[in-house]
Amino acid sequence: MTPHSRRVRYKALVEYDGAAFYGFQRQRADQRTVQGELERVLSDLAREPVSLTGSGRTDSGVHALGQVISFTINWQHTTGALQRALNANLPDDIAVYKLDEAPPGFHPRYDAVRRTYRYYVYTADTRSPTRRQRSWHVRHPLDVDAMNTAAAALIGVHDFATFGMPPQGDSTVRELFAAHWDVDVDGLVFTVQANAFLYRMVRSLVGSLVAVGNGSWSVDEFVNAFKAQDRNRSAAAAPPQGLFLVAVEYEQE
Amino acid sequence: MTPHSRRVRYKALVEYDGAAFYGFQRQRADQRTVQGELERVLSDLAREPVSLTGSGRTDSGVHALGQVISFTINWQHTTGALQRALNANLPDDIAVYKLDEAPPGFHPRYDAVRRTYRYYVYTADTRSPTRRQRSWHVRHPLDVDAMNTAAAALIGVHDFATFGMPPQGDSTVRELFAAHWDVDVDGLVFTVQANAFLYRMVRSLVGSLVAVGNGSWSVDEFVNAFKAQDRNRSAAAAPPQGLFLVAVEYEQE
Repeated sequence: MTPHSRRVRYKALVEYDGAAFYGFQRQRADQRTVQGELERVLSDLAREPVSLTGSGRTDSGVHALGQVISFTINWQHTTGALQRALNANLPDDIAVYKLDEAPPGFHPRYDAVRRTYRYYVYTADTRSPTRRQRSWHVRHPLDVDAMNTAAAALIGVHDFATFGMPPQGDSTVRELFAAHWDVDVDGLVFTVQANAFLYRMVRSLVGSLVAVGNGSWSVDEFVNAFKAQDRNRSAAAAPPQGLFLVAVEYEQE
Repeated sequence: MTPHSRRVRYKALVEYDGAAFYGFQRQRADQRTVQGELERVLSDLAREPVSLTGSGRTDSGVHALGQVISFTINWQHTTGALQRALNANLPDDIAVYKLDEAPPGFHPRYDAVRRTYRYYVYTADTRSPTRRQRSWHVRHPLDVDAMNTAAAALIGVHDFATFGMPPQGDSTVRELFAAHWDVDVDGLVFTVQANAFLYRMVRSLVGSLVAVGNGSWSVDEFVNAFKAQDRNRSAAAAPPQGLFLVAVEYEQE
């Protein structure tokens, strides 16, 4: 039997180290992006231009353990062969660790019902070279209990205008399912889950919660800034390298 | 009072990310090393050439959480001021996180009585971009119990000629205080403590223990290779990026 090409729509789980990218979304040709690298390798393999859709953007320096992408490609071999060919040709800061044919009509952004991010912080007098690309160095001790009291106020359906701009449309209302800090062997980790996030929202939340933790803000000041629904009331956003997109969940799973 | 210079001998604890270095020890001028960067910054601050001694070398790509160095420098300000000046001028992949005047006659290599290394391994079908500079990717599952049985045979005073070459002198006898694998959230971690290590010893031990874990070698084959005291009987050394020099201990502490 002669192999014949067929158009297949795939869903893929992608991990990347964001340090050397201008973020996820394709930019100018001279700016290296995750989408640009994936599309370049997919297009080489398919011998035709392939474009992909992601579950959402991540900023320059932000990492992903579970970014979800989808693309349609002419592919006459097995799914396993495509995954191996992708990982053999992708640079070492991107990998596709799961690849399946996509459910009919699947869209990685519109169909997502829950996204989970983690943000890592460590407190120490001296910056830590081995953690510099995956954690935020904060010099002063942080009051984790106060940070968790403030974070609890975020749970539920709220207008998060203080903490971000909508990536599309006008609504700044989102539903937060979880927002809490845990103490980890390496420092503190913030886990936050929502139906969707505004642009810069996690980093603005972390910057504002760390302001509570270091005593710059009281919990009440945090809650008042949140309720003001005013982007100018956020503390400065935390730096990108501490942020990981951990998982994106879908109805049909 | 006019500040006057005085010669002070310091002991420092140094952390570095080994990814972008040709190892710890100073090499040719065009090869970036940890010692070279530290000596360059120390010499700039002292306005005279300063050379340092380390507790031992680490290879290209190997990291340190607790490398110990010592140096003598003309310094008229406080120890805290020197530490701040060092960290402000060192590149972001090196930091001095503790600095004290050295005990009289202190030598970081000769006086060390115990060194601790850790080596990180993860098993997964697909390589992990976010762990690629601090862990070894092994595709197949590993039998941790068998690896720990083999590792236990290493404890005590033995000739470790199978696993390394002496960095100086002829003796390949060392005393191992600890050698065990633990399961960590990120994978497996091997902890090994000895009075001193041979060149490439930890990476050769890890390569040989992983050969036991993946079924290439039985525990008996490992023990026989060890007892043969023959460098040709080691499995291939594990790659450098999973290895961390964790701590060096001294009598007077």
